[in-house]
Amino acid sequence: MSTTFHLDDDHFHDECGVFGIFGADEAAKLAYLGLYALQHRGQESAGIAATDGVQFRVERGMGLVQDVFTPEVIGRLPGFAAIGHTRYSTAGDTSLGNAQPLASDCNKGKLALAHNGNLTNALELRRNLEHKGSIFQTTSDTEVIVHLVARSKVGNLAGAVADALGQVEGAYSLLILTRDEIFAVRDPRGFRPLAIGRLRDAWVVASETCAFDLIGAEYVRDVEPGEMLRISKGGLESIRFAPERTHQHCIFEHVYFARPDSIVFGRGVNATRERLGRLLARECPAIADIVVPVPDSGVPAAIGYAAESGIPFRMGLIRNHYIGRTFIEPEQAIRDFGVRLKLNPVRRLLEGHRVVLVDDSIVRGTTSRKIVRMVREAGAAEVHVRISCPPTVSPCHYGIDTPTKIELIASRNSIEQIREFIGADSLGYLSLESLRAALEDTEGKFCTSCYTGVYPTENIQLEVEAHRG
Amino acid sequence: MSTTFHLDDDHFHDECGVFGIFGADEAAKLAYLGLYALQHRGQESAGIAATDGVQFRVERGMGLVQDVFTPEVIGRLPGFAAIGHTRYSTAGDTSLGNAQPLASDCNKGKLALAHNGNLTNALELRRNLEHKGSIFQTTSDTEVIVHLVARSKVGNLAGAVADALGQVEGAYSLLILTRDEIFAVRDPRGFRPLAIGRLRDAWVVASETCAFDLIGAEYVRDVEPGEMLRISKGGLESIRFAPERTHQHCIFEHVYFARPDSIVFGRGVNATRERLGRLLARECPAIADIVVPVPDSGVPAAIGYAAESGIPFRMGLIRNHYIGRTFIEPEQAIRDFGVRLKLNPVRRLLEGHRVVLVDDSIVRGTTSRKIVRMVREAGAAEVHVRISCPPTVSPCHYGIDTPTKIELIASRNSIEQIREFIGADSLGYLSLESLRAALEDTEGKFCTSCYTGVYPTENIQLEVEAHRG
Amino acid sequence: MSTTFHLDDDHFHDECGVFGIFGADEAAKLAYLGLYALQHRGQESAGIAATDGVQFRVERGMGLVQDVFTPEVIGRLPGFAAIGHTRYSTAGDTSLGNAQPLASDCNKGKLALAHNGNLTNALELRRNLEHKGSIFQTTSDTEVIVHLVARSKVGNLAGAVADALGQVEGAYSLLILTRDEIFAVRDPRGFRPLAIGRLRDAWVVASETCAFDLIGAEYVRDVEPGEMLRISKGGLESIRFAPERTHQHCIFEHVYFARPDSIVFGRGVNATRERLGRLLARECPAIADIVVPVPDSGVPAAIGYAAESGIPFRMGLIRNHYIGRTFIEPEQAIRDFGVRLKLNPVRRLLEGHRVVLVDDSIVRGTTSRKIVRMVREAGAAEVHVRISCPPTVSPCHYGIDTPTKIELIASRNSIEQIREFIGADSLGYLSLESLRAALEDTEGKFCTSCYTGVYPTENIQLEVEAHRG
Amino acid sequence: MSTTFHLDDDHFHDECGVFGIFGADEAAKLAYLGLYALQHRGQESAGIAATDGVQFRVERGMGLVQDVFTPEVIGRLPGFAAIGHTRYSTAGDTSLGNAQPLASDCNKGKLALAHNGNLTNALELRRNLEHKGSIFQTTSDTEVIVHLVARSKVGNLAGAVADALGQVEGAYSLLILTRDEIFAVRDPRGFRPLAIGRLRDAWVVASETCAFDLIGAEYVRDVEPGEMLRISKGGLESIRFAPERTHQHCIFEHVYFARPDSIVFGRGVNATRERLGRLLARECPAIADIVVPVPDSGVPAAIGYAAESGIPFRMGLIRNHYIGRTFIEPEQAIRDFGVRLKLNPVRRLLEGHRVVLVDDSIVRGTTSRKIVRMVREAGAAEVHVRISCPPTVSPCHYGIDTPTKIELIASRNSIEQIREFIGADSLGYLSLESLRAALEDTEGKFCTSCYTGVYPTENIQLEVEAHRG
Repeated sequence: MSTTFHLDDDHFHDECGVFGIFGADEAAKLAYLGLYALQHRGQESAGIAATDGVQFRVERGMGLVQDVFTPEVIGRLPGFAAIGHTRYSTAGDTSLGNAQPLASDCNKGKLALAHNGNLTNALELRRNLEHKGSIFQTTSDTEVIVHLVARSKVGNLAGAVADALGQVEGAYSLLILTRDEIFAVRDPRGFRPLAIGRLRDAWVVASETCAFDLIGAEYVRDVEPGEMLRISKGGLESIRFAPERTHQHCIFEHVYFARPDSIVFGRGVNATRERLGRLLARECPAIADIVVPVPDSGVPAAIGYAAESGIPFRMGLIRNHYIGRTFIEPEQAIRDFGVRLKLNPVRRLLEGHRVVLVDDSIVRGTTSRKIVRMVREAGAAEVHVRISCPPTVSPCHYGIDTPTKIELIASRNSIEQIREFIGADSLGYLSLESLRAALEDTEGKFCTSCYTGVYPTENIQLEVEAHRG
Repeated sequence: MSTTFHLDDDHFHDECGVFGIFGADEAAKLAYLGLYALQHRGQESAGIAATDGVQFRVERGMGLVQDVFTPEVIGRLPGFAAIGHTRYSTAGDTSLGNAQPLASDCNKGKLALAHNGNLTNALELRRNLEHKGSIFQTTSDTEVIVHLVARSKVGNLAGAVADALGQVEGAYSLLILTRDEIFAVRDPRGFRPLAIGRLRDAWVVASETCAFDLIGAEYVRDVEPGEMLRISKGGLESIRFAPERTHQHCIFEHVYFARPDSIVFGRGVNATRERLGRLLARECPAIADIVVPVPDSGVPAAIGYAAESGIPFRMGLIRNHYIGRTFIEPEQAIRDFGVRLKLNPVRRLLEGHRVVLVDDSIVRGTTSRKIVRMVREAGAAEVHVRISCPPTVSPCHYGIDTPTKIELIASRNSIEQIREFIGADSLGYLSLESLRAALEDTEGKFCTSCYTGVYPTENIQLEVEAHRG
Repeated sequence: MSTTFHLDDDHFHDECGVFGIFGADEAAKLAYLGLYALQHRGQESAGIAATDGVQFRVERGMGLVQDVFTPEVIGRLPGFAAIGHTRYSTAGDTSLGNAQPLASDCNKGKLALAHNGNLTNALELRRNLEHKGSIFQTTSDTEVIVHLVARSKVGNLAGAVADALGQVEGAYSLLILTRDEIFAVRDPRGFRPLAIGRLRDAWVVASETCAFDLIGAEYVRDVEPGEMLRISKGGLESIRFAPERTHQHCIFEHVYFARPDSIVFGRGVNATRERLGRLLARECPAIADIVVPVPDSGVPAAIGYAAESGIPFRMGLIRNHYIGRTFIEPEQAIRDFGVRLKLNPVRRLLEGHRVVLVDDSIVRGTTSRKIVRMVREAGAAEVHVRISCPPTVSPCHYGIDTPTKIELIASRNSIEQIREFIGADSLGYLSLESLRAALEDTEGKFCTSCYTGVYPTENIQLEVEAHRG
Repeated sequence: MSTTFHLDDDHFHDECGVFGIFGADEAAKLAYLGLYALQHRGQESAGIAATDGVQFRVERGMGLVQDVFTPEVIGRLPGFAAIGHTRYSTAGDTSLGNAQPLASDCNKGKLALAHNGNLTNALELRRNLEHKGSIFQTTSDTEVIVHLVARSKVGNLAGAVADALGQVEGAYSLLILTRDEIFAVRDPRGFRPLAIGRLRDAWVVASETCAFDLIGAEYVRDVEPGEMLRISKGGLESIRFAPERTHQHCIFEHVYFARPDSIVFGRGVNATRERLGRLLARECPAIADIVVPVPDSGVPAAIGYAAESGIPFRMGLIRNHYIGRTFIEPEQAIRDFGVRLKLNPVRRLLEGHRVVLVDDSIVRGTTSRKIVRMVREAGAAEVHVRISCPPTVSPCHYGIDTPTKIELIASRNSIEQIREFIGADSLGYLSLESLRAALEDTEGKFCTSCYTGVYPTENIQLEVEAHRG
């Protein structure tokens, strides 16, 4: 029989992306395009909720935005306002159940929620709600918010949402659609991004500004941490539902997650990455012939490294863009099969050369080991690995799917041990100071818990399956 | 109702890729991987024929290799020898009918054929064969070969194939599978590539060597123009079926088609492209701040241009890799929608800068015009377009899907007129001399008819629908 | 363009079927077979919930049991206990949302519910629950029961279910699966059937006994009206959760719905129907040459009619069993197209004959009119229509999908007017007295509200979309 | 893992059905309906070829007519003339390759062929044609005809077809579509039926007249054995292409294959079957309480048996109409699983009764054995099996898919041995004389080779896979 090989890249997996639009004809079509631009933030499921003031419809499906949203499906989503969500889900969770937007019908009317982030006290809240008779339909932390809103004694929705959010802890960039308004909310620490834009008469909100560029909208500003924006026919209303706390922007959005053409937390992502490469070249120089990125995410940092070091930049690894999820593998195993399916070494470029290989992270180390081996087998004389951030030592609890601490190679190995494991001639990581410097973070506004193991929220309970959003 | 937008890139479309393997367990699985590596040469259909000496099976389907070949389908293809084909097909031809390998059962036994190239006298031959009572099942030029083999008076297959090929004109890199052998043949001018490799005890043949790299095979040499290789349990037998003619290797394989990590006509493709960029920088310099490729194919030439000119290389355009075939478009049209779906400008990189935009061809000019406009709207101060080959003035008759002459913008416009049409501040093409120099083609071994309109074969009849392979 | 013709049979639509099994290896596979046997009770969606004591899984899908439950899907349902549901849904409700079993996770643990019947006070209960903060996920009346159970102050599940059912009104044959037990409940009036059977060491429950026959189980008895059976590893426990009320068994189960080989309410269905035919022959005799049923449901009554009257029984109409949902119709319309697709007259049997046409109901009259016309066009000399029950004058509120009162032809027309509309030479209905006599219903244990307009429950509110189960 | 159970009914498998129409708007839509009415003759694949005088299109697919022909597919078949084909295929042949109509492009122009029957000298002809250089695309005997037409020296098509048919032996009811005419041909012995009808200005041809009834066409006459009808804008032209031979109408069409509402070979099928039942009652009486058919095909004969014997007719077995191809079977096997999935005994009808079970054939005997056992387990006191034709002792070579001689239970067992094997209390077959008498066949116009082993054609070579049509 044929055995299939499941590709499992050893990257941190993407989280979720959210998009909302209010006041446009064919809002669902624009949401669909917005989600397409945010596809890199989650490829497992996609959903859109839309309203025309009377009807209130939700369509969700497993797969890519383009596959879920056929003209027929979009045709079922008329209206002037819509919110959408793309999601990365964990392995076992292949059903639609946890896909977002979550829709519900409660005493506050019809609601749909799209959430990027993770709540850290969801389990405790859920147990309490179940005890009172609430029934949960999903295993997602997001559903807790819906129940808190439904049970709130505050009559108006804005108040009930504020009441509910007052009880949750953790990371949330949240969109709520009702029959006639959108709420766009960001937690008081501002873990995850959420930007506001303008498209003619319509307001748009999105995880990243690249979603604005596609539809021709203009970036206005970010939703502030602790701010709830109510967007309705009456315009934009800013409600401060919680006192601002020390900002904790996710630094890894700039290092790896966000698209290089996005502006995130008010800064251009590509420029950050190029700067990381330049600082890396200063901190961890190498005597080499060419600088080669691990594509695609390593490209901007490699360009920075090359520019600063004067060593020529070359595309010595080519990424295959026809890649799927599973492959049929011959019985006589092919060495480093998974990496070869994705990355192709340009042998004549690498042969006989000393290579600086620039990547943005090492997770378990297994993929890096294979890439180094493949580059060496293609003829490289030396392989010097350079990582454009500090060693990742601790999992994220705020919306990124990371392996457990014990699986993170840097959590229990020295840099020299990691170098030996991956088989590089030398290995260098960027320092936390330089990472902060690249982002001009003098006030400590960024969350760096994955590099330090120090978490900004009090209690970390993650027994409730996070919705990975 | 929703209107869907069909993406139509204004590139020359890829042609076909062929792969064969003899003497390996699970030959079909290795063929599947070989085709995966050749996916860039044709995404419309994929097929594999395999034999175990007794059974002889063919499976073909519309779509990508991975989608067509599920474990169940591969399971129906047991055997030690297999040939495969990926195809680009023209718009109307959505049925499986013309997909390859073409299989048939004739007095010479069971045969399967996979063909890359185009025959130029297929129509004449077909009319003649039909007159004699032959029945054609496809509209493909390749089927003519099958009928000529079946009607050949020469008893043995090698002889019958030689007899048949003696009657056809044009371009063919051809694989033929029988129950116990593979024939690998290249036309006497060697238009299209065909390389031989070795995987342990097995022989492999492929359009490009990147197919060898994936499965761990080693490149041995090219099949020679006019050579027919018979691969059987007895080993490799080289038969010269036609006198060699002046070589006419397709120069555009190096400019655009082949994968940069392949060795084609004995030369590394990436190195060629980097050299094209360097020569372009000398011939068409520009005063600018950054060099930006049109990704992905423009990258190596842009690296060469940057290296030679000293102007920094930057990824100012990012390609979206989640792209599908059709998109739903809002009624309020989005400007340059098609280009925006594929390419995203990194605004903060382009803003205020003088940009050299490096691409590998201009076909109709419409896409280039949109890209230039998009780069300008993202803030570029000046846009200087540089093309890493001469103007394309005439269609290809040897296996590449090109628009008609009248649609090729360079066939009826001066460079200045093209510059004006695409809206660039300046436009430069590489000269034919430099293109030849980059390939060290002092003897005129390359076909350059798309740049000159001069064709190396006598009569060009293309009324029979070419199989685009 | 092609226009498609949607088949809409003018029958009362089937309702729902439920099946449960406890204490068998591969419980889900047996549930799948049980549902297959109950397929006639609902073809729109199918679902199974199963437990192995640890895992608790639900799989549901649109379509027939065999299409929804592939080996892969069944493989996701391990365990010793399972409940299943087949459903007929109304036109607009094509989504999976309302499919059953309904699953939920509440403070009483994980629950799955499968419901046949309709609650008559669901709307009022739902409004009340929403006011208290409950969130509804479906538009089904069944969900009300789940919320009442979750909010019950009674700690143990049996008590909480009894508490919940004490608040609902209407018809329910209900199965509830937990991690380690099944509850099988029937409302105090016993509207819908629910039978208990034995398969080796396992207990089975099903809407009809035909589900027992397929898997080789034996019929034991019916669940009593007002009885809740708790089936667990400890065996069968009978709990009377409500005082018995006057029985109101749905008489239409015997007339039309149930499969003839089932025992329903303790009586064989085929025998009932044959008896209806005999009584019909006595009450509404005809001078004719042949008795022809409208297949398949009219067959047993026609056999009875023929036996009693001495007029030969003939299959003068043949049902097409390859029938689908939609057909392409030519522009030049074909007369009585919909009926012709389903029923084929045997011309040589009908020609010149006086025909008694036996059917089990006339709903709107439009289909009957077409059948009569088709039989006449096939050559019948006279057409005498005989219906094996009284005129249907009022809709069902207890689980059967009927048109509104105004659409029921008998609600506003005399028998003579109906005869004229359908174009029959004569028309006869069975009297209510004979219908009752056939069922030996001397005590008024059957609900006959569709024939009388008199409803046994107090308040009939059906604004909440009934789940049609 | 789940094991799936493949239903394999022990009936002779249906053969093929053909339909043609000339001179109607939307010819393909009417062909689609005609094929739908002929669906019982083949459920494996369906195809339609159509022409509007300019375009000539063929669409074929695996599955039922309704599934293959969506509005989109029908939309690709414009024109005033069309032919269609439904096919039963043998187990391994799951590909589309052999589906009909076969289309080809030869020196006589574009042709499509639809064939019901089997050629008995196809292998010899094929070898000869291959030797001359013809290439075969299918393993179907029908393709031989295409090649003979293409190679015919006769210039006009009618002549070339006559020339080709002069070389073939065996059974064929054949339709050929060209750009502007339809040929309808029947072999000189008339093995398989082919009827002509009239629909307004259009001519229709079909395997059975039930296809006329659905679209409202009227039966005119049969195509005569040895007659070729050319239908064109000029009207109907009758060409006698071969001298008539002794007629050999397939008697099994009347016994089992054809639909009861069809007129086949000029006789009503239902009437024949009822008469078979009556004669069976006279030849093989039984002392019993009820007569029960094996539905659906056994119904008319059972009605005849009951009428003649005076024993009451009852539907003691009910056929499940939701049946699919494969079922998931529990590990603890269910006795007679396959039969139970299809047939449901009505226990209360059978209990304690002496049952005459009427069926139309016994093939291997395995299914009959299960049915008898199931009826007995449902309580029948005695089971008397009556078959409405003689024992089947020899395979068919003229278009019906039968098992090999050795698998036919009656080929090597006495009636008493068969009775013992199937476990019946008594077993009776109709005599060949009575079968002929029922068809008033005094001149020996029917082929009865399956009952006698005597074949009307000289040489029976079936090594070429018959196309089962």
